Amino acid sequence: MDIAFFSEDRSEDAVLSRMANCGDERFKTIMNAVIRHLHAAVKEVELTQEEWFEAIQFLTRTGQLCDERRQEFILLSDTLGVSMLVDTINHRKPGSATESTVLGPFHVADAPMRNMDDNINLDGKGEPLFMSGRVLDASGAPVEGAMLDIWHSNAEGFYDVQQPGVQPDFNLRGRFKTGADGRYAFRSAKPEYYPIPYDGTVGRMLEKMKRHPYRPAHIHFIVSAPGYESVTTHVFVRGGKYLESDAVFGVKESLIIDFPRHDDPARAKALGVGNPFFTAEHDFVLTKA
Amino acid sequence: MDIAFFSEDRSEDAVLSRMANCGDERFKTIMNAVIRHLHAAVKEVELTQEEWFEAIQFLTRTGQLCDERRQEFILLSDTLGVSMLVDTINHRKPGSATESTVLGPFHVADAPMRNMDDNINLDGKGEPLFMSGRVLDASGAPVEGAMLDIWHSNAEGFYDVQQPGVQPDFNLRGRFKTGADGRYAFRSAKPEYYPIPYDGTVGRMLEKMKRHPYRPAHIHFIVSAPGYESVTTHVFVRGGKYLESDAVFGVKESLIIDFPRHDDPARAKALGVGNPFFTAEHDFVLTKA
Repeated sequence: MDIAFFSEDRSEDAVLSRMANCGDERFKTIMNAVIRHLHAAVKEVELTQEEWFEAIQFLTRTGQLCDERRQEFILLSDTLGVSMLVDTINHRKPGSATESTVLGPFHVADAPMRNMDDNINLDGKGEPLFMSGRVLDASGAPVEGAMLDIWHSNAEGFYDVQQPGVQPDFNLRGRFKTGADGRYAFRSAKPEYYPIPYDGTVGRMLEKMKRHPYRPAHIHFIVSAPGYESVTTHVFVRGGKYLESDAVFGVKESLIIDFPRHDDPARAKALGVGNPFFTAEHDFVLTKA
Repeated sequence: MDIAFFSEDRSEDAVLSRMANCGDERFKTIMNAVIRHLHAAVKEVELTQEEWFEAIQFLTRTGQLCDERRQEFILLSDTLGVSMLVDTINHRKPGSATESTVLGPFHVADAPMRNMDDNINLDGKGEPLFMSGRVLDASGAPVEGAMLDIWHSNAEGFYDVQQPGVQPDFNLRGRFKTGADGRYAFRSAKPEYYPIPYDGTVGRMLEKMKRHPYRPAHIHFIVSAPGYESVTTHVFVRGGKYLESDAVFGVKESLIIDFPRHDDPARAKALGVGNPFFTAEHDFVLTKA
């Protein structure tokens, strides 16, 4: 053993030296970083024993708030920017490719397949929206057979899975497959901003930081196609509230798009939406796998 | 807002800028260090999304293992050397003063007051021990009215509170108050090494690090006196197993003492212990409050 006894100066070395026999190099690399940064943070702020115990209690309660329906540790990671950082590191994209952002907790696998131009707003609430665009490759050519998995909250800021019995199942969700033109289009309702769950430990942390719990209005997309890298992303409503202070840091400038409002009964009728209505137009660019 | 949107390069700045309105300077300082070191660690190792999710699950399960009888997050802090680091930072001692070490999970408030030379080994098991010494101030003068709160495991490595119904209540525990000579003495059993609980997330982590879960044999002390700083510490048995690899990093060189073995029926009789027996002699040095 290199460092038999503990000292303040070399506290991290005392711990690191104990991993000498560990053969899992990746695990060792990760724990090495965790241990060094943990010790450095404690030393930097000279953490008191009361503060240490508060941290222990905070982490304990955060774990205990988790169940099949709630993941407070992911929320903690989201609100400390760690989820976005991991997402960004793992999805570095070349120039034109659509940037990724966090998946979020409300994705549902196997949402119903829809036909192009279908209305996914099953209860007809909220302000009408017609959204369309194309799936393209890096050269700008349309991608045939691309799948767009789409989901978003209603005008009150709730996803269907948060309101079983209130919203129809699979409300504001659907999967669409592109044809040879790479085009997609769907009818829905304009999304609105909403708070992340703030009745737990993360809510108390945000309050103490003087931060709000809101996410700006957005629509989620997972766009995939054979031979291409999938992209998990959002589009955000330009001009919406909280765009510059998303509680989970999900906003990237390239993902903010216009949602112009129209008062045009003839066009509304042609698109199959109520009047007045909003439109949004966005192309997704995939990179080769 | 200084940094409206997230980028890999300035990820920590995006998060830190959100605390601009927080008026609690100490909280801000701590969260600043936490956020910077968290992001730095993630970037250093380029954490994958699978590894991130494993970390989320590990922390969640660690919280969920905690209840009134078990605190897995403290165990995690202990085994990563963080508890000892916090203890050491908060108890920097001048030269001669007794060094501190971790409290551990088995302290019981209000253990019975004993008389000097009492036997705290209530079931008579294990190998007899006679331990004595003095409580002194920094000048070497005896401290009158000092309280020694003493507890340790039995020869099988279990504390009374871990074996209700097997060990008598308050077995191997007691509080002693010094007279004018500062002297203390008690009879007990020689302590033995034991494992920390290793059936949870921390146990799996130690296994993956190729570390054992054992703590070397020790006796716990909290020594306090009016006008002096209390010290929470252990004495460790010199030559014992795992001294150089304590699972919680509690060992400091100054806390390792001799526990010589004696085969001397006359002295055993005089001390009121069985033969053969062990002795230990240690002075505690307190600093002025």
